Amino acid sequence: MTKKYDKLVTNAAGRLVPTVINGQGAIPFMGVGQFKPIGHRYGPAISSCADYPDDGNKLVPTLRDALEMCGLKDGMTISTHHHFRDGDLIANQIFDIAHDLGVKNLVWAPSASFPCHEYLIKYLEDGTINRIEGSMNGPLGKFTSFGKMSGLAVLRSHGGRYQAIQDGELKIDITVIGATCCDPFGNANGLNGTSASGGLGFALADSQYAGKVVVVTDNLVDFPCVPWQIQGNYVDYTVLVDKVGIPEKIVSGTTQITKSPDRLLLAEMTARFCDVAGIIKDGFSFQAGAGGTALAVGDFFYKIMKERGIKARFARGGSNLYLVKMLEEGYLDFILDGQTFDLHGVRSMAVNPNHLMTTPFTSYNYHGKGNFAGLVDVAILGATEIDLDFNGNVVTHSDGYLLHGIGGWQNCLFSKTVIIPIPLFRDRIPVIVDKVTTLCGPGELIDVIVTERGICINPLRTDLIEKVQGSDLPLVSIKELKEEAEKICGIPQKPEFLNEVVAAIKWVDGTVIDAVWKLSE
Amino acid sequence: MTKKYDKLVTNAAGRLVPTVINGQGAIPFMGVGQFKPIGHRYGPAISSCADYPDDGNKLVPTLRDALEMCGLKDGMTISTHHHFRDGDLIANQIFDIAHDLGVKNLVWAPSASFPCHEYLIKYLEDGTINRIEGSMNGPLGKFTSFGKMSGLAVLRSHGGRYQAIQDGELKIDITVIGATCCDPFGNANGLNGTSASGGLGFALADSQYAGKVVVVTDNLVDFPCVPWQIQGNYVDYTVLVDKVGIPEKIVSGTTQITKSPDRLLLAEMTARFCDVAGIIKDGFSFQAGAGGTALAVGDFFYKIMKERGIKARFARGGSNLYLVKMLEEGYLDFILDGQTFDLHGVRSMAVNPNHLMTTPFTSYNYHGKGNFAGLVDVAILGATEIDLDFNGNVVTHSDGYLLHGIGGWQNCLFSKTVIIPIPLFRDRIPVIVDKVTTLCGPGELIDVIVTERGICINPLRTDLIEKVQGSDLPLVSIKELKEEAEKICGIPQKPEFLNEVVAAIKWVDGTVIDAVWKLSE
Repeated sequence: MTKKYDKLVTNAAGRLVPTVINGQGAIPFMGVGQFKPIGHRYGPAISSCADYPDDGNKLVPTLRDALEMCGLKDGMTISTHHHFRDGDLIANQIFDIAHDLGVKNLVWAPSASFPCHEYLIKYLEDGTINRIEGSMNGPLGKFTSFGKMSGLAVLRSHGGRYQAIQDGELKIDITVIGATCCDPFGNANGLNGTSASGGLGFALADSQYAGKVVVVTDNLVDFPCVPWQIQGNYVDYTVLVDKVGIPEKIVSGTTQITKSPDRLLLAEMTARFCDVAGIIKDGFSFQAGAGGTALAVGDFFYKIMKERGIKARFARGGSNLYLVKMLEEGYLDFILDGQTFDLHGVRSMAVNPNHLMTTPFTSYNYHGKGNFAGLVDVAILGATEIDLDFNGNVVTHSDGYLLHGIGGWQNCLFSKTVIIPIPLFRDRIPVIVDKVTTLCGPGELIDVIVTERGICINPLRTDLIEKVQGSDLPLVSIKELKEEAEKICGIPQKPEFLNEVVAAIKWVDGTVIDAVWKLSE
Repeated sequence: MTKKYDKLVTNAAGRLVPTVINGQGAIPFMGVGQFKPIGHRYGPAISSCADYPDDGNKLVPTLRDALEMCGLKDGMTISTHHHFRDGDLIANQIFDIAHDLGVKNLVWAPSASFPCHEYLIKYLEDGTINRIEGSMNGPLGKFTSFGKMSGLAVLRSHGGRYQAIQDGELKIDITVIGATCCDPFGNANGLNGTSASGGLGFALADSQYAGKVVVVTDNLVDFPCVPWQIQGNYVDYTVLVDKVGIPEKIVSGTTQITKSPDRLLLAEMTARFCDVAGIIKDGFSFQAGAGGTALAVGDFFYKIMKERGIKARFARGGSNLYLVKMLEEGYLDFILDGQTFDLHGVRSMAVNPNHLMTTPFTSYNYHGKGNFAGLVDVAILGATEIDLDFNGNVVTHSDGYLLHGIGGWQNCLFSKTVIIPIPLFRDRIPVIVDKVTTLCGPGELIDVIVTERGICINPLRTDLIEKVQGSDLPLVSIKELKEEAEKICGIPQKPEFLNEVVAAIKWVDGTVIDAVWKLSE
């Protein structure tokens, strides 16, 4: 049996990481922009039209038929996508089928996982699934933290997932794409149909590079299904089912503006900082990430822009009611949308040509010739921990549990200014720490920390410091923030990790930036 | 020096073809659908954002700068595209620059060539250009026919060009894409700007697979340029010039409806045939290729549809005034547009969401998982010659001269019914011959020949024969057609070829279907 990992070394960030992961070589993190890829993009097997139906009709009766025709077998890597977020109905079905067929040792490579996927723990336990390469949220995260996954979990950002698939690090054997509109040929989108979920960007890499591509839909239309967010020319089989996903469950905790007064304060301070620093000006751009606070920041931007008649060129990130309103009222020229976060976003993308679907390729892939995230003036992001060197953690909590995926977080660190509004402590646990439990993003890319007790600018950003000098913004040093937190909460106890790696955290270039360590149950 | 070609063998169509072309192995045609590709898609070198400007601004002052920064050197393959058709201003400039720099032995891989490229003959003569892999029209064709090109010319269909680039048979070192709208990052389209030319689909493969990608524009806009028909994430450099192309020259002889009474008769007979055969019905689809007669057929379809209240699902092919009218009047649900043939098409694509840009990937690539051309109910195509076995020629004339490119012709042969309306003779040279001078498309894919002296159905299509039985259509056999032509024109003299191959004709799967032979000046 393949070892979960092997050959630990200390990487450029001082973290101990494996250089062999699930039997495959891995490169330790070498510093931001330091690793130069030397290989070639992955080339999937060449297909021939001679092997596909003359009339273009690729329909097969059931998902099970499709998986069997794809040659589902032990050890394969199967991918799914999170356009329905917690309303996904596909992933669990796939592994039910695999289990029925007696297939073992699969790798599940979702673009993200959600609480609904707790269901899959039984298949992780019985050997149907060897490991997850994707995100581990909640129960799946705990399961991983306890070292119960057979293989080593691998976490990647959205852009890192595209990079890994493109570069051939993550070879997908079969991808199953849930689409709310599809023709028999496989052209598909998430915009039309009663289950409409928005853009299908997270499935792009899989459609381009997977060995076999299946599209499952509950809304089959005549050729051509337009827009073809997924191109039928990449698709092997199409399947019609009763219900492909639950769009109402797209809206979740991370996709609604916060109502907490504390967080609204953080959001307001963040917007004020941007204003004082001269970031909010005609033609600027911003990223409004998931999470209630980030969304609220966008809303405060809107107020400032309205007051002064300022127009932004574009907003990047998940779309929702608030961004759509700004677009429709003319405060935004474009939404560059990575993920529709509510049904207002879905509707807008379907009808407004200036509400554009973006993909992890356009926005986040670090192994492209630039990407959109780098062009954004300001990105508002979250974190579970920030340390004295401004390093950020988004996957584990200070108690050591792996509880979140990376999402687009690492990718957005390349925006021109990165601001992290966070409370000084959560449940009496300080958020500013001496050293992050898990390193997800190097401090040199994190510019500003906004807390209810003060705003802290990374000393590397002398330009920002200069711009806000003399303002009434409550500027503090990160050391002061940490001390203040510890004054209130006491010095937090470090988790006691066992000497075993349970997950690898990839950086945007495919190198290993940190490892997550085992906890005892 | 590399031999132009080597090792002739007789392929499955009985044609003598080289198996080594410009030093590279080539597979002889094995029959329709017989060659099974075994390799992997080409993977270009992996890029890294670390090597591209942080602010996404890839502008360089001149095309010359861009070419030098791309590392232009002897022996490279340089590609351009024909969205401006005879109004292209890019290709000639590139080779002027190459000549100035003393670079030799280049391969030019245009998606098509036009009379304006006669200018390049001097560079073919002085060794700047070794050969053309693309189409040879008019003067470039004659130059090729006389054996004056240093390398062996290679002709591919639009789909074959995508296939060859995708499969790594045709490796593009540098591509230069002329776009009428572009942002500094390289997102580009042909829809906006004073030079608007329409879709940029022919440049897709090059943008995806070329080593270096340059976009030249005369209309630089702020990021993001939308729609991004070409994605900036594939682009290395952008260049702003005074004028990128002459859109008025997009309209040429092949893009206007014929006014000739003879050809109009052919078009009308073709439409009548389709009507009698039951092809024109609600939800049907058709391909209206370039060429005055094909365009006129579309117009006759329109009349029949209007009369009977029939709606087509889609029309594929180059868009023009006539198709746009049908779309706007509701007789078409969609135009799937491979190439805007006039400025009405350009305008419609820019504003009508049901007028969709297609690409050689979606429509024509035979090494995909199906393509759109195969889904079309009826395709109306031209030919320079058809023989007794229904084989078709589109590249040479009966006098042996190479005068045309293949365009999408081979790819469209996969439509459900292929009809070729042609005059029985041109300039007193019969068009129906015993054996085509150059084999471009196997007769088994050509279903109906419509001439002014009768309609001839391929005996393989017993279903069509049955459908039109008892009608008043003037059905004849192909032998009768040939005899009638020869009665009028006499038996044509065959050209006297010299014993040297000057060009290879690729089939849609990359195999060599025929060779073009040298003529004496």
